[in-house]
Amino acid sequence: MSLEPSNPAYESEVRSSFGKQTAMTSIGAQLVRVEAGVVEIAIPYSSDLTQQNGFMHAGIITTIADTACGYAAYTLMPANSDVLSVEFKMSLLRPAKGSTFVAAAEVIKPGRTLTVVRADVFASSDGRNRELIATMLATMICLLRS
Amino acid sequence: MSLEPSNPAYESEVRSSFGKQTAMTSIGAQLVRVEAGVVEIAIPYSSDLTQQNGFMHAGIITTIADTACGYAAYTLMPANSDVLSVEFKMSLLRPAKGSTFVAAAEVIKPGRTLTVVRADVFASSDGRNRELIATMLATMICLLRS
Amino acid sequence: MSLEPSNPAYESEVRSSFGKQTAMTSIGAQLVRVEAGVVEIAIPYSSDLTQQNGFMHAGIITTIADTACGYAAYTLMPANSDVLSVEFKMSLLRPAKGSTFVAAAEVIKPGRTLTVVRADVFASSDGRNRELIATMLATMICLLRS
Amino acid sequence: MSLEPSNPAYESEVRSSFGKQTAMTSIGAQLVRVEAGVVEIAIPYSSDLTQQNGFMHAGIITTIADTACGYAAYTLMPANSDVLSVEFKMSLLRPAKGSTFVAAAEVIKPGRTLTVVRADVFASSDGRNRELIATMLATMICLLRS
Repeated sequence: MSLEPSNPAYESEVRSSFGKQTAMTSIGAQLVRVEAGVVEIAIPYSSDLTQQNGFMHAGIITTIADTACGYAAYTLMPANSDVLSVEFKMSLLRPAKGSTFVAAAEVIKPGRTLTVVRADVFASSDGRNRELIATMLATMICLLRS
Repeated sequence: MSLEPSNPAYESEVRSSFGKQTAMTSIGAQLVRVEAGVVEIAIPYSSDLTQQNGFMHAGIITTIADTACGYAAYTLMPANSDVLSVEFKMSLLRPAKGSTFVAAAEVIKPGRTLTVVRADVFASSDGRNRELIATMLATMICLLRS
Repeated sequence: MSLEPSNPAYESEVRSSFGKQTAMTSIGAQLVRVEAGVVEIAIPYSSDLTQQNGFMHAGIITTIADTACGYAAYTLMPANSDVLSVEFKMSLLRPAKGSTFVAAAEVIKPGRTLTVVRADVFASSDGRNRELIATMLATMICLLRS
Repeated sequence: MSLEPSNPAYESEVRSSFGKQTAMTSIGAQLVRVEAGVVEIAIPYSSDLTQQNGFMHAGIITTIADTACGYAAYTLMPANSDVLSVEFKMSLLRPAKGSTFVAAAEVIKPGRTLTVVRADVFASSDGRNRELIATMLATMICLLRS
């Protein structure tokens, strides 16, 4: 699928908006890839962000997946727009065990108003091998700034 | 619907498990209601947990909704079990503006293996009036401890 | 929640549009309630619409739930608009056993562009007692006719 | 991902079960591919199965996607089991215009109890070019026959 960005400054817009998400800094998340229709966000394991068994909390994994989906959609939106999440569905395939987690989002269907995005989340313990632990299907909306 | 807890100690089990979720402490979330089939979790607004417009991040709102759904299901599970999220779908109805957010989860269909739970998330600015900002539909699974 | 219809002719518009859905006639579905923000659709059991165990197929149950959600949203849309399904999530709580099935949809959050709707589907064998067999959470979009 | 079928007779079991789904015959759906972890179901356009604009009804498209997901999961289940849909989420990307529709389902994560499956639905007008019109993310459950 040819995904043509309409805003040539999309990468700096994504990085600037990401920088305003204090939640990303607080949980230690980083933007690791920004391309047209594709965004990846990584987060290291933190013993401060676990569920009851010591694995990363599904909500934190969802937080980076949602953000990756939002910015993957945003790369294809026009200048002077903003992106918001309409809804998402998350399937949790395996416990979030590992030292690093990466949410890789890719636009499936761009649109003027709505964009549908999929994100896969991978866990890795050694930085080389990775395992799919979750997958998200999300709808994002473009809001034009007045 | 009659929701009979099979574990008379369900409340202390929920509180004990919640206490092990370091993510809850880190984001400032608190258990505010634990009854058979019903759990509520509250979180105050924090400028450290926002998205790009200064509202609470949808992922953080999802984190408390997911946890409330999990523990609502857990209240009906037998002793010596654990609960994990299979999947959830979150619809974000309004921006998460406010000073306090409460995720109120209620079991729709309990089951030996799978339990379906709904959570509504409300925002309040004054502690009296509240507005529905999101709704979750989730599937939880019961794992028996060996 | 006060759900004010902006199109006073909403009921006749819903009935007219429903009448154009040949799928509804083919599966034997009927509109049984049309109010502002609320639509119900019923379907009798048919041995021609089953899955492998002789129960009504989840897809057929989904078809009436989706249609009920769409028209519940449509009751609140302006004149000269059309409604399309953006997405839905369906949780199947029990096998679709019974002689009649009713999908009851209610708008949770109306909007100028997007409307979020919930539908519960009930099965009945005797026309009096009914059991919740499925629940849907859906997003509908309003398209203005040019 | 290596998806090893545990039941060597999986293809005949899928075909036999599909043959019992009267809904499939009634809507004109056909099994067009059965492999370990992968099932495709096709349906021709029918003017009897439309929504209000004359396109195939989203519910009918969902019906073949759900069935494809169920049987994709079933190919990996042991002998003497049955498959049921727990839940699915469907994103409708484009109107269902075309002369043929194919739902292509693939297992993402097999499991002893739960299997997560994704299905893409494609429309074609000429039998050669095809367009993605919808995508489903589903959870299936394995029930062992007593």
